Amino acid sequence: MQQKPDYIIAGAGLVGSLLGLRLAQRGFRVKLYESRSDMRKADISAGRSINLALSDRGIRSLELVGLKQEMLQHAVPMQGRMVHDVGGNLQFQPYSERPGEHINSISRRTLNVILMDALEKMQPDAITFNTELSSLDFQNFESVFQSRNGERFMHQNIPLLATDGANSVARKELMRISPLIRFNYAQNFQNYGYKELTIPPAEDGSFRIHDHSLHIWPRGHFMMIALPNPDATFTATLFLPYEGKESFAVLQTEESVTDFYSKYFADSMPHIPALTKEFFEHPTGHLYTVKCHPWYYQDQLQLLGDAAHAIIPFYGQGMNCGFEDVFVLDQLMDQKLSGEELFQKFTDSRKINSDAIADLAEDNFIEMRDKVGDPVFQRKRALENRLEKFDPSYFSKYALVTFRPDVSYHHAMTLGRMQDELLMQICSSGEEINDASLPEILLKLKKLTLENSE
Amino acid sequence: MQQKPDYIIAGAGLVGSLLGLRLAQRGFRVKLYESRSDMRKADISAGRSINLALSDRGIRSLELVGLKQEMLQHAVPMQGRMVHDVGGNLQFQPYSERPGEHINSISRRTLNVILMDALEKMQPDAITFNTELSSLDFQNFESVFQSRNGERFMHQNIPLLATDGANSVARKELMRISPLIRFNYAQNFQNYGYKELTIPPAEDGSFRIHDHSLHIWPRGHFMMIALPNPDATFTATLFLPYEGKESFAVLQTEESVTDFYSKYFADSMPHIPALTKEFFEHPTGHLYTVKCHPWYYQDQLQLLGDAAHAIIPFYGQGMNCGFEDVFVLDQLMDQKLSGEELFQKFTDSRKINSDAIADLAEDNFIEMRDKVGDPVFQRKRALENRLEKFDPSYFSKYALVTFRPDVSYHHAMTLGRMQDELLMQICSSGEEINDASLPEILLKLKKLTLENSE
Repeated sequence: MQQKPDYIIAGAGLVGSLLGLRLAQRGFRVKLYESRSDMRKADISAGRSINLALSDRGIRSLELVGLKQEMLQHAVPMQGRMVHDVGGNLQFQPYSERPGEHINSISRRTLNVILMDALEKMQPDAITFNTELSSLDFQNFESVFQSRNGERFMHQNIPLLATDGANSVARKELMRISPLIRFNYAQNFQNYGYKELTIPPAEDGSFRIHDHSLHIWPRGHFMMIALPNPDATFTATLFLPYEGKESFAVLQTEESVTDFYSKYFADSMPHIPALTKEFFEHPTGHLYTVKCHPWYYQDQLQLLGDAAHAIIPFYGQGMNCGFEDVFVLDQLMDQKLSGEELFQKFTDSRKINSDAIADLAEDNFIEMRDKVGDPVFQRKRALENRLEKFDPSYFSKYALVTFRPDVSYHHAMTLGRMQDELLMQICSSGEEINDASLPEILLKLKKLTLENSE
Repeated sequence: MQQKPDYIIAGAGLVGSLLGLRLAQRGFRVKLYESRSDMRKADISAGRSINLALSDRGIRSLELVGLKQEMLQHAVPMQGRMVHDVGGNLQFQPYSERPGEHINSISRRTLNVILMDALEKMQPDAITFNTELSSLDFQNFESVFQSRNGERFMHQNIPLLATDGANSVARKELMRISPLIRFNYAQNFQNYGYKELTIPPAEDGSFRIHDHSLHIWPRGHFMMIALPNPDATFTATLFLPYEGKESFAVLQTEESVTDFYSKYFADSMPHIPALTKEFFEHPTGHLYTVKCHPWYYQDQLQLLGDAAHAIIPFYGQGMNCGFEDVFVLDQLMDQKLSGEELFQKFTDSRKINSDAIADLAEDNFIEMRDKVGDPVFQRKRALENRLEKFDPSYFSKYALVTFRPDVSYHHAMTLGRMQDELLMQICSSGEEINDASLPEILLKLKKLTLENSE
């Protein structure tokens, strides 16, 4: 290494690459180590899911590094949820009634490659692949990385930004010194696993099902979803309990999988030609939440992204939240903060919000698999759309989380939950809601907003 | 080793020794490894606190191994809380109005020595000291222990019972295979540390303060307690925040400690002659809760005691809960369960109850430092005593937890919390409660019991 880096970054995944790029733009010299091979050279898995929902918080961070337009060119807009019932009937639930408010299906690989390319354009040797954080020595402010062929890289007195993901080695090093820093930690696994399946393009190369939607097959205690890709494929994901009557445990034969799909997802079967093959060849993914605190050690280490706050994917916010970490860190750097003060302020500012989106994602898992098929919930969702149309200054909980980066996750959760409670109450009465009553409902909702303004 | 053991036990602390003894009594050959030296030969710390409150759940387990009477001979009964206000005024709050219901202050060392002696009487070579669990190989059902001088002991195909405490190595090995077993884990540190101080005997060899009480100096956001020892000393423990106006952070000089004690614990000062010396020489202890699940791996490993469920000490139930683990495991063995089925049933049965006592202990910390000095709470506690006197079949939450081993922790928590709510409601009105209204209150309480019978 010719020049001593200002920051070491563990992990060149989505958050690490964006962070490295932004720090380079700020004039810092960065050094990233990535445990995987370079995905641009080898056909390796880019991470735990193939495509992701990019929304306004993530987009704001991409705008910060000047890559918003380029990224959106590679994305497929999704305007709402397309709900498939057991009989194959479709119901479309738009995410918003305001123009331009949609989410974007984008490939994890595409995002990562564009970010790494942009970083290397500024600092060609920034990323070393096949090399993983192996240990931290907090007494001597030392970080040690090890390559797959045994080469060791040691850095002293250089702050480490750890974006090494849900299974973070840096976080395990904080765990090791738990009593010293009173490290609080919780990992919570869902009793659900997931399986990715492919919906290929139609013979004429077009999308087989409606392309501008996030498709959901809600079935109570399990569900399937599908997100479109630019190549006219969909990546479908089945979320299913590990144990029980309908579970991975009982789907052990091709016949049982076929029967299960015939019974619950019949309308999807013609679109998933390799169903049984993929079901048994693809690994079953785990779903878990990680919360911890503190995220830093003195001026030596800061956790960001999944390393600090791994969440389950049901609000489509894991990447968006990690990208927002970079945005917030950048803002704090604008305030001339550095060292331990920067890390402490960053942690204080982000912890409450990452906890909020973690909880919202757990709530939304129940909503997606269970409630989107429920009549009262559907009435409530329809009412939210009418309200947003009638008065675009009203934002539902979903809209606050997804389309309002200026509102914190924590505030979106607090306000959104109160709004939900009020609207569910109104909709559970079963009475028809006519347009004349909308202003009154909006008044009640506005009152909640005023009482809970940040 | 001449004979292959039936069970390996990691840790010969209180729970490990009791477990080893009980298994030996059941005819099993056991092998215990203890990381510390033999406390009977060297003057070493026996663990994190000097004395402990032994109550009916713990006593029941000691009765199981035939050591109840011997242990109680070494204990000092505590009939209630002696509350010291800032002015030095005393208020005695009995734990129960039923005769014989009290808790017992006993030395951790005495307990441990008697248990180890009893075990070695049956199996002289049962315990190897200075030897710690170093790793588990779940693929090959192998446990490896390492002595301080580098000797290694390896066991294959022998179930490991891990009673290696709050910082359990066995639990870390489960953590390592988290995704495989979907290992849920949470550690939560209090923002409080503790410091142990000594109240020596009076010049005539008698106790300096009332000997049959657990003394409490509640001061809102901090407190001191003191438990009597058979040698007429008390072990006092100060619980104080790490940071803030009154905290360990600000008590950095002898003068500040003296000022602090003069202001808040004036009546105790003449009784703690070595205050400043001990304050700076003794380590500051941490307080944390550990919850995890599952506690076992196949038929290879079972966590028990603090290794499975470390709790904070404010219900005086840490050891009692660990001892109850042994009682419950023994009961399940009576049902001829073994292997993975035994471990699974044990975990199912104990997890809900150790979660309950963990939560109760966190609640009680607030109660002890804050509420015991509060007039409404004091009225409620007095009412509970009157109710228990009027109708001995009524048990307060404290009494259910402490004196009713036949009622599970979880049931004691659920019922006790509802009782508390009802009584606090009654006592917060401020109205005088005359004896004539006791039957009506008891009727309401009985109704709660019936609605929540196990």
